[in-house]
Amino acid sequence: MRQDFLETKSRKEVEALLAEFAPVSVGTVDFSEACWRVLAQDLVSAEDLPVGSRSSMDGYALSARDSFGASESNPAYLECIRTIEVNRFPDFSLASGECAWIPTGGFLPQGADSVVMVEYTDRLGGGTIEVRQSVAPGENVMAKGEDAAAGQVVLRAGTRLRPQEVGLLAALGIVSVPVYRRPKVAILSTGDELVPVEEKPAPGQIRDVNSYTVAALVEEAGGEAVHCGLVKDDREALTEAVARALEDHDAVVLSGGSSKGTGDVTIEALEAIPGAEILVHGIRLSPGKPTILARIGDKPVLGLPGQAGSAQVVMAVLGQPLMRRLAGDGRAFDESVRSWRRARLARNVGSRQGREDYVRVRLELHKGDLPLAHPVMGKSGLLRTLLQSDGLLRIPEEAEGVREGAEVDIWIL
Amino acid sequence: MRQDFLETKSRKEVEALLAEFAPVSVGTVDFSEACWRVLAQDLVSAEDLPVGSRSSMDGYALSARDSFGASESNPAYLECIRTIEVNRFPDFSLASGECAWIPTGGFLPQGADSVVMVEYTDRLGGGTIEVRQSVAPGENVMAKGEDAAAGQVVLRAGTRLRPQEVGLLAALGIVSVPVYRRPKVAILSTGDELVPVEEKPAPGQIRDVNSYTVAALVEEAGGEAVHCGLVKDDREALTEAVARALEDHDAVVLSGGSSKGTGDVTIEALEAIPGAEILVHGIRLSPGKPTILARIGDKPVLGLPGQAGSAQVVMAVLGQPLMRRLAGDGRAFDESVRSWRRARLARNVGSRQGREDYVRVRLELHKGDLPLAHPVMGKSGLLRTLLQSDGLLRIPEEAEGVREGAEVDIWIL
Repeated sequence: MRQDFLETKSRKEVEALLAEFAPVSVGTVDFSEACWRVLAQDLVSAEDLPVGSRSSMDGYALSARDSFGASESNPAYLECIRTIEVNRFPDFSLASGECAWIPTGGFLPQGADSVVMVEYTDRLGGGTIEVRQSVAPGENVMAKGEDAAAGQVVLRAGTRLRPQEVGLLAALGIVSVPVYRRPKVAILSTGDELVPVEEKPAPGQIRDVNSYTVAALVEEAGGEAVHCGLVKDDREALTEAVARALEDHDAVVLSGGSSKGTGDVTIEALEAIPGAEILVHGIRLSPGKPTILARIGDKPVLGLPGQAGSAQVVMAVLGQPLMRRLAGDGRAFDESVRSWRRARLARNVGSRQGREDYVRVRLELHKGDLPLAHPVMGKSGLLRTLLQSDGLLRIPEEAEGVREGAEVDIWIL
Repeated sequence: MRQDFLETKSRKEVEALLAEFAPVSVGTVDFSEACWRVLAQDLVSAEDLPVGSRSSMDGYALSARDSFGASESNPAYLECIRTIEVNRFPDFSLASGECAWIPTGGFLPQGADSVVMVEYTDRLGGGTIEVRQSVAPGENVMAKGEDAAAGQVVLRAGTRLRPQEVGLLAALGIVSVPVYRRPKVAILSTGDELVPVEEKPAPGQIRDVNSYTVAALVEEAGGEAVHCGLVKDDREALTEAVARALEDHDAVVLSGGSSKGTGDVTIEALEAIPGAEILVHGIRLSPGKPTILARIGDKPVLGLPGQAGSAQVVMAVLGQPLMRRLAGDGRAFDESVRSWRRARLARNVGSRQGREDYVRVRLELHKGDLPLAHPVMGKSGLLRTLLQSDGLLRIPEEAEGVREGAEVDIWIL
């Protein structure tokens, strides 16, 4: 089998090919629907945020200069001239020696540059406030424009919007958000033995599994999965099904029959579509070697191995980054967007040099130490191995394995 | 302020209180909608999966005994009597000395217990197969029932269904899945200074941020967020709004004005609702100390601090586990469901003993070493600190800080 590897590609090479596909087109969504979508344009703030300086504490707004040198033993005394309300912009100014009560969130009046916390003050008679702490200019203040300055780019195109970015949109009143469309992805499963999940399999048949796991992984990565049914292991049927799916979808993900001949049928079927170019036929990945990538027009067709376990690993390793790329995500191939967990390997794991291995592992929590990562063995056609796994251990191409006790990063599935 | 801590609770104590709320009621969803939902009943397999033993390779099905001792220099010779098709259950048996061609995924005939890979065989004339490897019983075979045995519990109630569990449902033909309803969560923001995001704030007013970030965090944790509007900082208005929200929601999340007096108004407002019990008023958490938890009837009301940064941290630390608990998730408080990343702290971080600190950090990737975690400083009323952060560093109550260079686990937001 060694010689097969000569024509196969590394994961990095495949990622570079995936990165050449362009993001899908752009639309707008209401900002309440914007969470986890990808911004399609740089967003510029139309206003300062905060629009004026605000207090981050309950206390007295003052000019810091008036507190200089104040201490427990040597307080300063200021005149409290007003009470600021949290929902009113103060319409007065402080002169030297004056202060004003300010609640958390309240806007500072003219003449104030800082706030002394109420804990360091006392209200004496006749509006006099004893201040027992020296504050610095800006202390306990959220400065005008500190979150965003008017005219400034506050979020870049390609940013996936988290709850905190949604909060920024809210604060700035950006109710209509330019985002990339969710890529519409056609899911096809091939295999003469497959029946839809609703049917009772006849002897020799099995229910289609990959369509549903692949769809779930497409959706998790921000795509919109569209089930386009089962296709027989037949070149013409497959050519027709893929060509039709390409008409109104942004990408096609096939999970193929896994037997030796099936890959060739898929290749031939794809080549028969005008404008098709086979970019990848075989990857130095285990599981996942018989993966296929084609470009047809400007759209990607990803052919996954038929084995359920292999299909899921390839979807996670390459299919999900492709979905994120199509969705315009600036961090589509950035591994830090994935969830990782540091662990200690529970036993030696061997690996063949010249391919990247993904070993399924189960994590066992250990008080006071890293979790233990136990390799889950079993054939990649089984569902059990992924069901019992918490994540994947990656072993690089050049490594021959990883020793028991090694600290490893587990990619959580 | 120290004395306040006497009546406050630790995070662990609050988690124990949250765990006492019962999950919401149960429904069913079509399995195509089941991903990331929580299973409400144990699922028992009605059939063996696989329903018979299947090959995990292309090769020849045989009785392992017939290959014993076979090697490159000393092959065994078997008679290939049939070709198994991937979609037909073989209707014949193998006798001793016989084998049958089998594709990956094909079912083994009676009399076969293993498969020899095609790479270790040669087809000689007249149907004779040269076998150059000795195989063990079960080799290259996915055994009948290996994924699931008929009558066995295959998934437990409380399991959150990942793509691989959806695959198992598909394989077993379980199209209608008993799951917990998504908890319906009323989101209320209080504060005289707040205006809805669609409005232009008058001087002194600001747009409501927390409703939207909190809603996004509720949805991320599996809840259904329902915006119930803005409420004035007024005891009666708040009592009425919460009481009304409790009528047709499973929980209420309030994010309060952050000034000193507001917490008391919230407490009084909640206490005025019949059946209310204040469980928590203050948590040894920073940010997040002024958090409130009440039980009204059997429903939780969570009062978050008003500062945007504090509200998000408390939602992540306690609000999301509560949502998962209400959604029936058996791992609601299990920290391993969160995304963590091992990193090296870029500088000393101090912390006051007696409270659990959550320090926002930005991660900087470092080739060949752990990422560097840079603390992001800034007031918790600012949005910027969370926008610039990749995650949170937790410093336990008993610690006084963490030293520069320490290996730490960063909780990715």
